[in-house]
Amino acid sequence: MMFQTNQVYPIIWHNDSVSLIDQTRLPNEYAFVEISRSEDMAVAIKTMIVRGAPAIGVAAAYGIYLGAREIDTDNRDEFLQDLENVAQMLRSTRPTAVNLFWAISRMMKVAYETIGTVDEIKKALFQTAQAINAEDLQTCQDIGDNGLKALPTQPGQLTLLTHCNAGALATAGYGTALGVVRSAWREGRLARLFADETRPRLQGAKLTAWECVQEGIPVTVITDSMAAHCMKQGLIHAVVVGADRIAANGDTANKIGTYSLALVSKAHNIPFFVAAPLSTVDFDLADGSQIPIEERHPGEIYQIGDTILTPEGVEFYNPAFDVTPAELITAIITENGVFAPSELKQQEARKAA
Amino acid sequence: MMFQTNQVYPIIWHNDSVSLIDQTRLPNEYAFVEISRSEDMAVAIKTMIVRGAPAIGVAAAYGIYLGAREIDTDNRDEFLQDLENVAQMLRSTRPTAVNLFWAISRMMKVAYETIGTVDEIKKALFQTAQAINAEDLQTCQDIGDNGLKALPTQPGQLTLLTHCNAGALATAGYGTALGVVRSAWREGRLARLFADETRPRLQGAKLTAWECVQEGIPVTVITDSMAAHCMKQGLIHAVVVGADRIAANGDTANKIGTYSLALVSKAHNIPFFVAAPLSTVDFDLADGSQIPIEERHPGEIYQIGDTILTPEGVEFYNPAFDVTPAELITAIITENGVFAPSELKQQEARKAA
Repeated sequence: MMFQTNQVYPIIWHNDSVSLIDQTRLPNEYAFVEISRSEDMAVAIKTMIVRGAPAIGVAAAYGIYLGAREIDTDNRDEFLQDLENVAQMLRSTRPTAVNLFWAISRMMKVAYETIGTVDEIKKALFQTAQAINAEDLQTCQDIGDNGLKALPTQPGQLTLLTHCNAGALATAGYGTALGVVRSAWREGRLARLFADETRPRLQGAKLTAWECVQEGIPVTVITDSMAAHCMKQGLIHAVVVGADRIAANGDTANKIGTYSLALVSKAHNIPFFVAAPLSTVDFDLADGSQIPIEERHPGEIYQIGDTILTPEGVEFYNPAFDVTPAELITAIITENGVFAPSELKQQEARKAA
Repeated sequence: MMFQTNQVYPIIWHNDSVSLIDQTRLPNEYAFVEISRSEDMAVAIKTMIVRGAPAIGVAAAYGIYLGAREIDTDNRDEFLQDLENVAQMLRSTRPTAVNLFWAISRMMKVAYETIGTVDEIKKALFQTAQAINAEDLQTCQDIGDNGLKALPTQPGQLTLLTHCNAGALATAGYGTALGVVRSAWREGRLARLFADETRPRLQGAKLTAWECVQEGIPVTVITDSMAAHCMKQGLIHAVVVGADRIAANGDTANKIGTYSLALVSKAHNIPFFVAAPLSTVDFDLADGSQIPIEERHPGEIYQIGDTILTPEGVEFYNPAFDVTPAELITAIITENGVFAPSELKQQEARKAA
């Protein structure tokens, strides 16, 4: 894998363990957590030290390898049985991002299909985790470059709006939605990125803003509620977001607030793009109605830092994702090209095994 | 004025000064600030110790009286000249809420039209401020009760959604949008209120939630970005919001995020009501395009309590209001009845002088 020193890589294999950027401490602290046990990887995914659908996939792949490494047997059947428990633990961390399940399936397939000793299986698992990491980085770069074909050509300098963080931090590097932003910036086609702060966890204000500052991309942070007003004033030329799971018809689960953003984009005739690897597409789901939506702790809404925002006696509802219907999506930008939601199904055969 | 002891009155004349509930300290502290000088009233309005369009009107009326009381002359012309300076200081506190300008105009008209000594003018100003306060309370109760005619009759128990705080705290008492909620609750027609937290200043999470808890109204706080998802799931039957200024055609300026909420309500065929006194209607403005939109300090976005949310080097845009076009508004609920936006103009003659 070609690492560039000025870029952000949230997951790096290093000294026989996984270095994760601790995304819960950004932007105030740029710190790493070393993970050398599969259980710790499950905790890191659950507590969002690592987050973002593609990054969760990469992290889970390494989690499977770390789990494999911990199993102390030469008996292949015993090994595979124990590895199933590791897979189950990792699968139960977060329900919505399909990349998690995709990466675990791919790793388990390798385990079952590798002929040879337990040590040989472990070696194959390590190589597969490394491959998933490297492929995701390449995929993001391809998504970013394909995005250039989708973006409006007028005006020459665009303003884009994004929601949450579908950036380098959410992937192996470069990002999906922010991959498109990066490619547009590199080509001189981007004037400014507007970043929704993305309540409740503020990934836009914290992570997307931080990534932009690292690379000198001009970024304006707004509250989620300001997007429609900005659109009405002509400040936004196009919207690009990531995805946590895309159904076969193009319905897209992404961070809560994405659906709202798609509706207000439609009302202003502003193109609305989803940027995601094909590993995010769940071809087994006909439409978005069956995508499970994670509900998270209400503390994400009522507490920021040490400040409690609400009085005692209030109730909360905290869905972490929503589903944007395909008809609100202008196009889906993938590593294989830019597709109308209805064209997605033709890509099933080309999705990596 | 009939005060009920279990109700919330943000502005009370008491011991020769004005007691304001300090709304910047809610919900953690229920504390009062005593204001006895017009300059302090200007600061209280600017720093949002008192906020909400009708409450700002009442506070400014008392501010004019406090300013009048400070003017040490028996010369009527000198007095009026000095009072114009007080009026100008109060007018410059906040640009969007028209009730501010309406209340100051009404007070100044009384000053100019009162025949007699300076002392007699001062007395008339005091009585007018008291009248504005009492009328606003009655107006809100009438708005609340008129709202019952507008709300859907099915299902028997409604869930409503509101944005920001158009409650007792934003008025002399009872509230406009929350006046409708209170009346619906009193009549047994309300099952639950959903409250948008209302970034950046969180008036929904802090103030609306607090008012509901005071009266035992079941309230669920959500982030602004969740409203569309809640609507899609059928959790919301109608939306009721307040207004800071309504143009003659019904275009409505209200807290940032209201426009977005109106768009997503339309997309789900959910009725969208504006509740406001006729003093909020600016019949001099043909439409909403000329309503000045206040831009506030970016610290409202990047800081909560002691926590800084964003990295250094980020820019911000912080419009405090947006304009919802009349065509997205199902009806405007006033003290004189419920009107389609297009019927509003007929009420110009009935607006209090």
